[in-house]
Amino acid sequence: MSAELFLKACFNQPTEYTPVWFMRQAGRYLPEYRAIRSKLSLLEICRRPEVACEVTLQPVERLGVDAAILFADILLPFEPMGLGLSFRRGEGPVIERPIRKAEDVRRLRDLDPKSDLGYVMETIRLVRHRLGERTPLIGFAGAPFTLASYAVEGGSTRSFVQTKTLMYSDPETWHALMDKLAVAVGRYLACQIEAGAQALQLFDSWAGALSPDDYRRYALPYTAKALALARKANRNAPIIHFGTGTSSLLELMAEAGGEVIGIDWRIPLDQARSRLPGKAIQGNLDPCALLGSVEELESQVLAVLRRAGGQPGHIFNLGHGVLPQTDPDRLRRVVDLVHERSAARV
Amino acid sequence: MSAELFLKACFNQPTEYTPVWFMRQAGRYLPEYRAIRSKLSLLEICRRPEVACEVTLQPVERLGVDAAILFADILLPFEPMGLGLSFRRGEGPVIERPIRKAEDVRRLRDLDPKSDLGYVMETIRLVRHRLGERTPLIGFAGAPFTLASYAVEGGSTRSFVQTKTLMYSDPETWHALMDKLAVAVGRYLACQIEAGAQALQLFDSWAGALSPDDYRRYALPYTAKALALARKANRNAPIIHFGTGTSSLLELMAEAGGEVIGIDWRIPLDQARSRLPGKAIQGNLDPCALLGSVEELESQVLAVLRRAGGQPGHIFNLGHGVLPQTDPDRLRRVVDLVHERSAARV
Repeated sequence: MSAELFLKACFNQPTEYTPVWFMRQAGRYLPEYRAIRSKLSLLEICRRPEVACEVTLQPVERLGVDAAILFADILLPFEPMGLGLSFRRGEGPVIERPIRKAEDVRRLRDLDPKSDLGYVMETIRLVRHRLGERTPLIGFAGAPFTLASYAVEGGSTRSFVQTKTLMYSDPETWHALMDKLAVAVGRYLACQIEAGAQALQLFDSWAGALSPDDYRRYALPYTAKALALARKANRNAPIIHFGTGTSSLLELMAEAGGEVIGIDWRIPLDQARSRLPGKAIQGNLDPCALLGSVEELESQVLAVLRRAGGQPGHIFNLGHGVLPQTDPDRLRRVVDLVHERSAARV
Repeated sequence: MSAELFLKACFNQPTEYTPVWFMRQAGRYLPEYRAIRSKLSLLEICRRPEVACEVTLQPVERLGVDAAILFADILLPFEPMGLGLSFRRGEGPVIERPIRKAEDVRRLRDLDPKSDLGYVMETIRLVRHRLGERTPLIGFAGAPFTLASYAVEGGSTRSFVQTKTLMYSDPETWHALMDKLAVAVGRYLACQIEAGAQALQLFDSWAGALSPDDYRRYALPYTAKALALARKANRNAPIIHFGTGTSSLLELMAEAGGEVIGIDWRIPLDQARSRLPGKAIQGNLDPCALLGSVEELESQVLAVLRRAGGQPGHIFNLGHGVLPQTDPDRLRRVVDLVHERSAARV
């Protein structure tokens, strides 16, 4: 196994077998992660490069995945930008000073990722040193819209009421916020490439809350700006552009950028692919399939491979992050199954 | 204004103007509703036909909508079926005895809507008496999948982890549960028609959590069964089949049944329509658009009408329920704007 296989698939080139990794593959479902987490908070792990490196590597050997993903959180830039960030047990992120008006946006500090998030860059360097050319390392950031939703709501949301209220009532402030986030995200991604990340994933996890018209007006230009800034830093690192519930947004997401479009289980992989000529596709097993019977799991994995049709440019993944209840052995089984079946095809 | 206009639109026939009503048009955003709610719980209102009738009628005059919708809750059948139902302030529904295994399904009582939910039928009779033939009354029920998700999770969910775990690990129990729910929902809807409801809406609000393959296997047959049972009771009452996040499911939902397919803002109305030949379409303004500026609201209302293209068979609605923060005057403005602009077109 070498880094090349994954990168080739990202660029839509044929590979010996289908590469596979899992969003949130470093996380709570792993006993060795929970052992560390029982002593350190999420932010403490992120801020200690040796520990973050360890956690990043935990799933790589155990699962046999074809890529590592940096252990970090999409909200890390919020602390140096002055928004205030903490995590309450079971409640997710809490943004201490949420954005509600023009003054709140003006107050935001510009992100200087090299110094502000130096610990992330150090983690990347450590991981690269440990992995060498065996397994590629994916860096990542949240997309401007998804970040803005946390910044405006002050935490997680189901309804996006505050976010859209700002968008629809004070578009000037919205656009100013999104522009600041686009620059921060673009610089942060570029910096991760410089530190050694070989691919990037942009998480626009909540873009699916928007209508296509709103996505085009209120989100797309800033995702495009962030990705263009990241692109300038390096022409060789592929970008995976991911969202959930994006069945109506795929073409617009592709227009915003990325070599690979990441989808969830809500759209059949072959349908997504036929709408995205030239793009590679990442996905799209429902993470809940790992909680059912082995037969159901295998049948769903094979259904994804069938829809991928043995064409180049498929990266097997879940449609969203690994759930904490997941048995690591089930994930290992998925990796092996994907490798075996896709290799047999060639 | 007469009941006929709305019913014609449901059957894809030309009307003088586009009819409009709002999901959750009777609810917390109305001061006159809050006045009643300050004295009675949600379940108490539902169980007192005179009060439920009053609440059903509150928005009809005030907003000038073209249909009334029964004031009730999709979970009312849970109490007589033995699941146990209560509402905790700010937390939504709590199901006391959730479904997790075969035994839980066997224990479920069959619903006898006429006696078990006689208070709903009485509300329908009272509302019909008050409205006469001026404004039609829409009855409703939750679809089997959406009901099952509450029954299995024990309340609201974002991830549907318990629901899908049951589905994927014990399909026999899942299918037994869904079959019981399909019969209950079908009978309940039929009974509402007999009591006087002139149209029905089936809320499969959370169907969008499923992949198309899963929807076809685990949900569609039961929605079809429920709608066939409702249909037997009366051939003249149109059925609106509604879900959110259903961009990938539209054809399958149409296959399951309904004269009208209800969509949210995530898919452009013209795209949905072109995929649903012969069906009328209901939707699809983002409820958050009512919280922004008047200019933005009007522009979004006109965009929906533009996408409807002046064709018969459009019922204007939101993509989901009215939010509690909504100003009633804004909804009135939407009704007037839809009426004016669509009438001008003819």
